[in-house]
Amino acid sequence: MRYLRGTWMRGGTSKCWLFDAADLAGGDPDAVLAAAFGAGDPRQLDGVGGATSTTSKAALVQRSATPGIDVEYRFAQVGIGARRVEWGSNCGNCATAIGLYSLLTGLVPARPGHTTVRMRNINTGTLLAATVATPGGAVPESGAAVVPGASDGGVPVELAFLDPQGSTTGRLLPTGRAVDHLPVPATLVDAGAPAALVDADELSVDELIALRRKAAVLMGLSEQDDAIPKTGMVCPPRDDSHDLRIRMLSMLAPHPSVGLTSAVAIAAAAGVEGSVVHQALGGEVPRVLRLGTPAGVVAVRAEWEDGVLRAVRLDRAARRIAVAEISVPLALAS
Amino acid sequence: MRYLRGTWMRGGTSKCWLFDAADLAGGDPDAVLAAAFGAGDPRQLDGVGGATSTTSKAALVQRSATPGIDVEYRFAQVGIGARRVEWGSNCGNCATAIGLYSLLTGLVPARPGHTTVRMRNINTGTLLAATVATPGGAVPESGAAVVPGASDGGVPVELAFLDPQGSTTGRLLPTGRAVDHLPVPATLVDAGAPAALVDADELSVDELIALRRKAAVLMGLSEQDDAIPKTGMVCPPRDDSHDLRIRMLSMLAPHPSVGLTSAVAIAAAAGVEGSVVHQALGGEVPRVLRLGTPAGVVAVRAEWEDGVLRAVRLDRAARRIAVAEISVPLALAS
Repeated sequence: MRYLRGTWMRGGTSKCWLFDAADLAGGDPDAVLAAAFGAGDPRQLDGVGGATSTTSKAALVQRSATPGIDVEYRFAQVGIGARRVEWGSNCGNCATAIGLYSLLTGLVPARPGHTTVRMRNINTGTLLAATVATPGGAVPESGAAVVPGASDGGVPVELAFLDPQGSTTGRLLPTGRAVDHLPVPATLVDAGAPAALVDADELSVDELIALRRKAAVLMGLSEQDDAIPKTGMVCPPRDDSHDLRIRMLSMLAPHPSVGLTSAVAIAAAAGVEGSVVHQALGGEVPRVLRLGTPAGVVAVRAEWEDGVLRAVRLDRAARRIAVAEISVPLALAS
Repeated sequence: MRYLRGTWMRGGTSKCWLFDAADLAGGDPDAVLAAAFGAGDPRQLDGVGGATSTTSKAALVQRSATPGIDVEYRFAQVGIGARRVEWGSNCGNCATAIGLYSLLTGLVPARPGHTTVRMRNINTGTLLAATVATPGGAVPESGAAVVPGASDGGVPVELAFLDPQGSTTGRLLPTGRAVDHLPVPATLVDAGAPAALVDADELSVDELIALRRKAAVLMGLSEQDDAIPKTGMVCPPRDDSHDLRIRMLSMLAPHPSVGLTSAVAIAAAAGVEGSVVHQALGGEVPRVLRLGTPAGVVAVRAEWEDGVLRAVRLDRAARRIAVAEISVPLALAS
């Protein structure tokens, strides 16, 4: 039996297990995580996983040697009913949790007032910053901040995606155009993640999936990867609680709210004149853009400097659920 | 913030959080458990719950002052999407886990050879015994025993329900008859839990539910309680891998395998001459009765003494998943 110390956090609408990267060195981290989570079983009955995509997540966290970066992390999507771990993406909700975790564990010292944890996601190279109110240098353990899609309150964490444009393709507009015709008008944008944002209200999931494939080709992405481009519909608001109404896909099914990297892409597209997002806003881009999702309103703030997107900020919440010593069955993790 | 030490165990096909009862004394255990599990949220996003009925379970365990009983426990079914805890039933899978837990924690000292932990379930008064192989007095932490409905192996635990007959109604046959006609022939039996066992192969769920209500009335139980009587169909085997084919309901839906208290009731009915179970066996009751369930074969061993059912034994498996310190948000748990 191998014992693995982990911290279980809720970040936004996800549950993530955070580990000290050093504790998984010198072995096969895929095998250890799969065994710890009970990944081989479709109910993850024999481990710490939650048996849904948003509750089967982990990250390996370590101090960074890079100047200006406090911590680095590798995000792991752990299999459900398959002893497999995917390392291809980032998770903004886990990043929110890692920000608070870094302060709670002393990995990053808290200062009086506010403390910002600067992070690098190793999987994608994305830079992020999490800022937490730390009055008198004390780190809060609980709070009342609620995000759409979660019922309970957590510690407020401002999460910023830094210099997010062109994160995957190198260009904010991979096709060089604000609108492509697929034939439905769509804006193909790359910030936080590549996204295909469609000027539509009532497309079926099948129509969106077909459109998604065309967008992938135009953006130079693989048609086989279900994770990107993020795809969804953008249209004018129904009421004044929000500025835009959005409906995204998640792994080829309707997303219950909106992924954070998708929110970043939408905020980026809002700043591109002539894009379907800019048009749905009637050409008026508010400083705080309120996205109306099925679960509620998610607010994003984009910061442009000389036509370059410097940051996109979101208000999130996080909480430490437990600190644990996990028993990892040796036969599976060796 | 309140910190609560807990041990997360897999027992059979359930995940259970086990707590030292003393750690929940001096407060409202319902509020503490609901907050610890994140019970208010339908996904139990902000706590340690697994958001399904078999992964939202807890037990408060303590040493027993009663001679002949080692440990006592209260079983808690924690709400999902409701800050509520139900204390009305027992769970055999959790009892399996509590047996191993008692040895791993030293609550009951292990002896060379095998060690038996005698337990009383406070909720129902049921007596149980868990026996674990403890060679040289060492308690195993992992094992290869697999039960139907679970993919991974665990430590083999023999679980015995002791003197289970008449557990709820006081009589093995509450109506005094081996068969009642509802109008489908049924055996109403009370051992482990009250059960209505129907001689049928192809009844619909609706037909079973209707029949269940009639059985409840005849057995003097509430028609409103969805948990008892346990209801299901019993018929001859399809092949020689099992002795009986059974299909049970669980909270008004088809059970994926068989609950342990239902298995006890079926084993008891097998020993009653003329019962639908005895008939389905062709009057030949094997020493080890193999129940063919949708998930696989569950073997039960009934021990009769002068017409009294002394024990029903099952081979189960358990494993410690993690030891944790849970952060319980004070505002919810006070």
